[in-house]
This record gives sequence, structure tokens and C-alpha cells, in this order.
Amino acid sequence: MIRLFVPKPLAAGADIAPSSDQARYLTGVMRRAVGDEIALFNGMGGEWRAVVAEVSKRGCVLRVEELLRPQETSPDLDLVIALVKRTRLETIVEKATELGARRIRLAITRFTNADHTNVDRLRAIAIEAAEQTGRLDVPEIVAPEKLDRLLADWASDRRLMFCDEAGDARPVLNALADSEASPWAVLIGPEGGFSAEERDQLRELPYVTPVTLGPRILRADTAAISALTLWQAASGDWRQLAS
Amino acid sequence: MIRLFVPKPLAAGADIAPSSDQARYLTGVMRRAVGDEIALFNGMGGEWRAVVAEVSKRGCVLRVEELLRPQETSPDLDLVIALVKRTRLETIVEKATELGARRIRLAITRFTNADHTNVDRLRAIAIEAAEQTGRLDVPEIVAPEKLDRLLADWASDRRLMFCDEAGDARPVLNALADSEASPWAVLIGPEGGFSAEERDQLRELPYVTPVTLGPRILRADTAAISALTLWQAASGDWRQLAS
Repeated sequence: MIRLFVPKPLAAGADIAPSSDQARYLTGVMRRAVGDEIALFNGMGGEWRAVVAEVSKRGCVLRVEELLRPQETSPDLDLVIALVKRTRLETIVEKATELGARRIRLAITRFTNADHTNVDRLRAIAIEAAEQTGRLDVPEIVAPEKLDRLLADWASDRRLMFCDEAGDARPVLNALADSEASPWAVLIGPEGGFSAEERDQLRELPYVTPVTLGPRILRADTAAISALTLWQAASGDWRQLAS
Repeated sequence: MIRLFVPKPLAAGADIAPSSDQARYLTGVMRRAVGDEIALFNGMGGEWRAVVAEVSKRGCVLRVEELLRPQETSPDLDLVIALVKRTRLETIVEKATELGARRIRLAITRFTNADHTNVDRLRAIAIEAAEQTGRLDVPEIVAPEKLDRLLADWASDRRLMFCDEAGDARPVLNALADSEASPWAVLIGPEGGFSAEERDQLRELPYVTPVTLGPRILRADTAAISALTLWQAASGDWRQLAS
């Protein structure tokens, strides 16, 4: 069943007008017609079955019928990612959405080459990935901030997994095995890594857990996917499926 | 230091003529000149320091000086990946190389849309990724085979991690915690998943361990990266760095 994110209140009997892009996709690309079923979610109110109620040249109307899944609270995991080149950043947003990150924060570090990115485009990628991966929410994309600023405002009850390519840090699974349950974030640096000053600063912060991701050099997108995977497997919602 | 893969014998004093693409990259793109150092590896004989000995219009000559790192044996991990669309397959080859897979086998399954791919291009991607990630070997890329054939010829001492999206399988970390040391392979299906017959067949094989990769639907490239990451972290060479 096709899933669509609609930022609108959902309740049985409600009529929803999807965006023109969504209407074109539904009726033009996917050939859905009056009476066909789709699923809708708005990030807060669960997933609903809806049917195509009207199709016209100007768009379509979806009638909400019944709740399929109530809203769930996913593990509280952020990704903090230094700006890297566009295609890799887009991959990271897609993958972080599949891997259940709640929030993706963009950071400007010493060796970051860019200081801006198209945040709206990243939001659109996150929505599409959330539709496809079956999530009930869409990760928030937070506009780029300087790393210093981001750390100065850090909520100290959130642990920060610092993926340190240059150090003697512990493997992720060992570090997580010793940690208490809490909100977490994963921090991934730019292609050029962190500066010596940034590394020293990070390692002195009480909420930072430095970790290593193995003996090979990983690109930023690989490192982000690996770190999020290991957190979900050891501390997140991949664990709860154990038989 | 730039690393280049050269499929040639390496020994102190040897003169190596890199390929014309490599020579253009070294002297044209990266502006290396006579006397500059680079690192060479051939997949079997460790990593060697070399210097640019001559530069001409037709190419360059690299003189091998000394061994930097002896050859290592990496964990015996294969990836078996169903043919997926080209860009995702190329991502998977890049990432599997970073994540230390020794061999990448391409499989044709019931719901695979293609029956061939440009294996030479995938080999070139694996070489470039190996150069960048710091590996001493390059993963072998095995041309596409039908899944039936591949399973019929399977070496029964190699465990096969079957990433089963539709089942009640155990999380990877739980499954690996109970397993004995052995060669392994990770099996990832096509975008359409495995057929019911394929799933039944796989689950009956004595060397197959079905696993789940969490509650969300993952694209094939994400699933491959996540499964390889978890194997390296739990059973492979990410473990040995523990302090």
C-alpha cells in the first residue's frame, strides 16, 4: 500500500487534499483511481487507511477511513552530521530516516567546506524516506549551526557518540554496553575529519562518548549509517524484536 | 599519502609503471612530481612506500622503496547481493569495500529485474574504495549467478546470514552471539524482497541464519551496510580494537 505523509489532522471521515505533487504521483504515476486504498500519516496521529474519493484535473481528494496503527514513540536518537558534499548528505538523510533517527542536525566544523545547504530539499528527502520505510514520523532537519554553538547549547542529559577516526577510542558495542539508558546523538565529522582542537574539546565534555568504527577509514555516509545501526541494535528498537 | 593499487609484484627497488589513468591522476590531478611519495599495494604483498622516479608525457615511473605494512588477513566475510539498480549497486560495492567484505557475489533472484551488470565497473569502484579506505586487498567481485546455483554450490562451512524482512527472525546481535567462529556471508535480497519459495528454501538450509534488521523497511543498500557493520562489530575486526 502506498504511504503518504500529509501535514494535516487525520480522523475518520476527514477529507484530505494531498499536495499537487502527491496527487500527480498517486493518480498519474501510480494510476490510483476512485475507491483505491492508500495509507496516510502526519507524524503525530498514527497511520490511517484512506481511499481515493475524487479525482479531477486539479488534483484528488482522499477520504480517511480508519486507524491502522496508533502513533509510536521511537527511540530518542539524533544524528549530528557535518556538512559534506550534497550527494552524500542526501544519502545520509535518506539512510538516517530508515534507521530511525528522530532529528538530523547539520553542523559546520573547522574542516567543513560549506556553510549552507538546501534544507528544504533534505526535508523532502526525509519525507519520502519516511513514507517508504514505514515510519510514523518524519525526522526533523535542523538548519546548519556551528559546532561550537551546538555544543554550547547541548542538553547535558543527551549522550553524544563521537565517532573519532584518529583516536584510541573503544568500539561502539563496548561503549554502549556500559552506558545507561538516555537520549543519544551520533556525531559524524566532515570528509577531512575533526581538527585537533575540536577533538580535544569533544573529549573533555562530560556527555561525550568517543568510539571507533573499526580499522578502516570510512566515508562520512558509511560512518553515519554504521553508527546509527550499532546504536539501534545495541540500545534502540532493533533489540526489542528478540524472540 | 595517496594510495594506489597496482596488480604487479612489489619489492624494494622495483620500478612500477602505473596505468595511464593512474599516471594522469597522480601527475595531472594531484600534481605529484619527481621525488614525491605515494603508497602502493597489490592485494597480496602488503603496502609499500614508493617515490615518483620519472615523469614524462607518456606516463610516470614509481620506484618502490620500503615496506610500510605487511599483508594482513582480514575476516572471512562475503556479501551476496541481489542485482539492484545500478546506482545502489555501486554504493553497495563502495560500502562493502569500506566495511571489509572479502568477496562480493552478485545474485539473480526471483524478483530481480536484471540479469547482468557491468562487473568491470564494479571492480573499478572496489579498487578505488580500497585505495581510500586503507585496505591491503581489494574485494573480489564475482559475476552474477542464479541464487539456486549459488546455493547448490555453497561451501557448507560458511554460515549465511539471511536478512529476512518478512519474518520472525532474531536480531543480528543475538544471532551472532550464539554462533561459532567460521567464515560468513551476508545475503541481501532485491528491492522486491525474496519470493515465498526462496524464503522457505533459505530457511531450510543448515548453514543459513535468518536475522532481522529492525522494525523499519530498509532499502537494499542500507540493509547491506547495516548487516556488514553488525557482523564486523560483533564477530569481525571492529572487535579487536577494544581497549
